[in-house]
Amino acid sequence: MLRNVLYLAMGAVLLSGCFVSVHREECLTEGKESRGLRHVVMFKFKDGTSSQQIREIEDAFRALPGKIDAICDFEWGTDVSVENRQQGFTHCFLVTFRSEADRAAYLPNPNHKEFGKILGPHLDKVLVLDYWATK
Amino acid sequence: MLRNVLYLAMGAVLLSGCFVSVHREECLTEGKESRGLRHVVMFKFKDGTSSQQIREIEDAFRALPGKIDAICDFEWGTDVSVENRQQGFTHCFLVTFRSEADRAAYLPNPNHKEFGKILGPHLDKVLVLDYWATK
Repeated sequence: MLRNVLYLAMGAVLLSGCFVSVHREECLTEGKESRGLRHVVMFKFKDGTSSQQIREIEDAFRALPGKIDAICDFEWGTDVSVENRQQGFTHCFLVTFRSEADRAAYLPNPNHKEFGKILGPHLDKVLVLDYWATK
Repeated sequence: MLRNVLYLAMGAVLLSGCFVSVHREECLTEGKESRGLRHVVMFKFKDGTSSQQIREIEDAFRALPGKIDAICDFEWGTDVSVENRQQGFTHCFLVTFRSEADRAAYLPNPNHKEFGKILGPHLDKVLVLDYWATK
């Protein structure tokens, strides 16, 4: 009896690990040796853009994964590099899609367009580079 | 007896899931709400760089995670964007560190410096932006 309980407890602990694993692999496209289609977006804001305006832009971008199903993973951050090769860019957003079809759904999505309207007036430079992520 | 074997089999299956999970989370810094310190590196090669020379550079970068312990995750790919905002960059490498200390160990690492010698003669433009990855 005690042994069965131990086995079950072990199973429960391992099960939680398994769920985490499944969650983190959701952008893997079936049959494709890739972690997904990465969409790297960098911004440099115009001089004079206030910290509150920047915060509103950050929040608006961060809200997109909750509004657009085609986004299967999302992360972002502000530049903390030490090599002075960031070309003036201060923000990086990493959006991940499962497929080119999902990217094609994202780009003209009304919520994405709406974000563009919030961003546009403050944008000095933008860089967008997409790649299929492989090791 | 049969029940014990079933419990063990279940444990083994779950264990494999757990290993995948641990592997994919290894860049999470304890106590930090981040997936790690991302180091985004983009290249544009000089006109006239041959496809073989580009392949040698790709292979040399891809070999670094096997040589430098400070790299806890690595992925890369070539530009497939459709918005023409890649500013001429054709390659993106995403190197992840657990800490600023690991980045500080990576930058002057002899293997990294050796890679720089292979890359340097063919490099037109480079962009490096680091960020602590958050949702």
